[in-house]
Amino acid sequence: RIMRPDDANVAGNVHGGTILKMIEEAGAIISTRHCNSQAGEPCVAALARVERTDFLSPVCIGEVANVSAEITYTSRHSVEVQVNVMSENILTGAKKVTNKATLWYVPLSLKNVNKVLEVPPIQYVRKEQEDEGKKRYEEQKLDRLETKQRNGDVIFPIINPEPHTVGYSQSSLIHLVGPSDCTLLGFVHGGVTMKLMDEVAGIVAARHCKTNIVTASVDAINFHEKIKKGSVITISGRMTFTSNKSMEIEVFVDADPFVDETRERYRAVSAFFTYVSLSKDGKPLPVPQLLTETEDEKRRFEEGKGRYLQTKAKRQAQLQQAAQ
Amino acid sequence: RIMRPDDANVAGNVHGGTILKMIEEAGAIISTRHCNSQAGEPCVAALARVERTDFLSPVCIGEVANVSAEITYTSRHSVEVQVNVMSENILTGAKKVTNKATLWYVPLSLKNVNKVLEVPPIQYVRKEQEDEGKKRYEEQKLDRLETKQRNGDVIFPIINPEPHTVGYSQSSLIHLVGPSDCTLLGFVHGGVTMKLMDEVAGIVAARHCKTNIVTASVDAINFHEKIKKGSVITISGRMTFTSNKSMEIEVFVDADPFVDETRERYRAVSAFFTYVSLSKDGKPLPVPQLLTETEDEKRRFEEGKGRYLQTKAKRQAQLQQAAQ
Amino acid sequence: RIMRPDDANVAGNVHGGTILKMIEEAGAIISTRHCNSQAGEPCVAALARVERTDFLSPVCIGEVANVSAEITYTSRHSVEVQVNVMSENILTGAKKVTNKATLWYVPLSLKNVNKVLEVPPIQYVRKEQEDEGKKRYEEQKLDRLETKQRNGDVIFPIINPEPHTVGYSQSSLIHLVGPSDCTLLGFVHGGVTMKLMDEVAGIVAARHCKTNIVTASVDAINFHEKIKKGSVITISGRMTFTSNKSMEIEVFVDADPFVDETRERYRAVSAFFTYVSLSKDGKPLPVPQLLTETEDEKRRFEEGKGRYLQTKAKRQAQLQQAAQ
Repeated sequence: RIMRPDDANVAGNVHGGTILKMIEEAGAIISTRHCNSQAGEPCVAALARVERTDFLSPVCIGEVANVSAEITYTSRHSVEVQVNVMSENILTGAKKVTNKATLWYVPLSLKNVNKVLEVPPIQYVRKEQEDEGKKRYEEQKLDRLETKQRNGDVIFPIINPEPHTVGYSQSSLIHLVGPSDCTLLGFVHGGVTMKLMDEVAGIVAARHCKTNIVTASVDAINFHEKIKKGSVITISGRMTFTSNKSMEIEVFVDADPFVDETRERYRAVSAFFTYVSLSKDGKPLPVPQLLTETEDEKRRFEEGKGRYLQTKAKRQAQLQQAAQ
Repeated sequence: RIMRPDDANVAGNVHGGTILKMIEEAGAIISTRHCNSQAGEPCVAALARVERTDFLSPVCIGEVANVSAEITYTSRHSVEVQVNVMSENILTGAKKVTNKATLWYVPLSLKNVNKVLEVPPIQYVRKEQEDEGKKRYEEQKLDRLETKQRNGDVIFPIINPEPHTVGYSQSSLIHLVGPSDCTLLGFVHGGVTMKLMDEVAGIVAARHCKTNIVTASVDAINFHEKIKKGSVITISGRMTFTSNKSMEIEVFVDADPFVDETRERYRAVSAFFTYVSLSKDGKPLPVPQLLTETEDEKRRFEEGKGRYLQTKAKRQAQLQQAAQ
Repeated sequence: RIMRPDDANVAGNVHGGTILKMIEEAGAIISTRHCNSQAGEPCVAALARVERTDFLSPVCIGEVANVSAEITYTSRHSVEVQVNVMSENILTGAKKVTNKATLWYVPLSLKNVNKVLEVPPIQYVRKEQEDEGKKRYEEQKLDRLETKQRNGDVIFPIINPEPHTVGYSQSSLIHLVGPSDCTLLGFVHGGVTMKLMDEVAGIVAARHCKTNIVTASVDAINFHEKIKKGSVITISGRMTFTSNKSMEIEVFVDADPFVDETRERYRAVSAFFTYVSLSKDGKPLPVPQLLTETEDEKRRFEEGKGRYLQTKAKRQAQLQQAAQ
């Protein structure tokens, strides 16, 4: 569809969150269709995880985003979908790849939302495709277990923070979940959550460097728990790490199903977003260094540095491979 | 994309206006892309006309609408686009044709919005395709001239109207044109206007018969004049004719560019919408007859009857042709 | 959240209605959460009244609005919430207070929408806080009774009105209430209604003075009756008074639950909005005087003058108090 002014920031760059939302909608359609392709209980595919996603080039207002999706692996209870986004300037005809994303979905029964159904297997052209898919499946399963640990963290507000400290840029947003945010089952679309997460992360990044910022990448996001219609969700973000030209922001989503007495507030999602700062002609700008004060902040900075160096090393390995 | 609660009425049927808006967006993308496919001045395709469109079957919340578009004819300054909409129930896999629409676009220069540019010609597989296209082009050109005449009409409010009279159900809506309603040129998307027109027509129909109503068809719509960002548009609708099971509503769009002092309020678009009333299980219901009071109302009723009988005759001729 | 192009007028100033909607959402969340904090029937807090609200400074596209809410008083069946809005330019870090609003909510049972539940009492730090709250509670209760009287008024259209008369700028808008406009109980959010009211009032003001206008204040708004999903609401506005630099517009909301045959159209809300006209550099401009023609118009002008002088006197008293 055509990108509109509301999809973009003041400089005309489309929010990463808008792209994530479109990716997720495409993934939900193709995986729901696949899981209902055999006779049996009708189901809706729910987003369980999005793998790390790089935003290769910014999209602008007036461009058309073309989204294509393909199922690349099925386990017994989950579907892996690859989604590609191309942005096309329909005036010049220029096309560029914006994103390649990998999403995992799980089919939930329409009659009983807590029942996970079986996924019809797909046919692989080559045996290796199945093996590679299986390897990706095992890896993401492991990673999902790990992030569950990290989830106790809460963001406290700081009074009169100094510029460039963690407390100075941290932000949070509350949203009341309405009907258009939800699937047929009455739970929030993963894409809606990701769009709000990107919005908060963008505010944190802009507060820190006070320039035009764009989403560069999103670390793997795990959706631990469903969020019901009528819940209030609090999305909080804080900066964890800065390199010379990038900022890493941790985002938490907490859901408060406050009309449902049986449940306490719970952590539904958490993720890391990376932003870069752009000059008026679209070049990356240096980023002010994050000032860490507490022990926890220093620890999170080091952990962020670890993720940054790991990603950098992976990318260089890929470039070398490609060059060979 | 997946149809959401906000796209639909209380009974879960997607508004015809939502479908029209999607059709128009697809048409605008394919024709803008085509008109910029040759070197020359960059341009944006503006909607000039939509041919009569039938809504073959209602679309429901949760279904996926697939829109495909194809250029079928080009004249020197205009492009004909055929758009098909299929709705797909991704739970059952059932697909049905929802709409087939024909739209005409005109390329306007990005630098000078009053300049109409030349359209690169398309290649036809068979010579007859070009001849048939040319015939459709001449017909719509003639029809556009004719509707221009009808445009002086204004809707006056009636105090304490009786049920089932024209004054009882007539309605109007004002809308301030915002940035997301507009193209790159700063003029309202044709699809946005059609969505508002359908909204008003739907309110007129519901006020008349007080049941669940759905759009059955839209007569050819001509877009006489562009509407600028920041304008206030008034969309007014009145019932003109009822058959046993359908209602015809005339809709006018008037634009008031009130921040631009040099222009008066003007008629931008007008069209006829046909609605049917549906029971809870989706069967067509009888419609209360429209009570006409003034001479003008009686004349418009007769004209509406003429259009109704003409359409009916055409459809029967097509059915007979198909049966042969 | 970040203010988007669609939240603002052509000059980039965010609509007062967008701010009102955000205020009401914050108030609804905090009061619903409070009313569900004790074991008992689950409920949703419904807006009963908004006290007079001044817009202290305009907010622009790209700024972040920070909304904070606090419960300041509880009676047996109602909750008073204070909401503060700060706008923050995240590029410069500049913050300013935009609004301070006081809202009253009433808890309605989720199982039976006509049942008003009891509100858990809050703890006051000082005894005077409770006494002052009680005084505010009694005052608003009295005022709610008074406005009920004024509600018979209807706006009639005028044919070919002269510029600057009441008939020239009066406007009305219809809106079909969709799912996203509603709470879990299926009734329109107070904030949605206020946003539409501000939209109509803004169009009246702009038609009168044909310049960029912004909301300066809103008089106390009482929500007499709930509005159900699927209703058509008509929002009408007319100018009642002009001072040298401000315009007062009266706005009515009438609801037409036309699929529910047992109910007639009824007046749901009414309120006065005050607007000022701004030059391109944001300075207040003189406003053309309103031309009153009928006896009713002259009477309403005098009443508006009374409200204007009263507010002015109150503000000066506050300034003197502050100076002492």
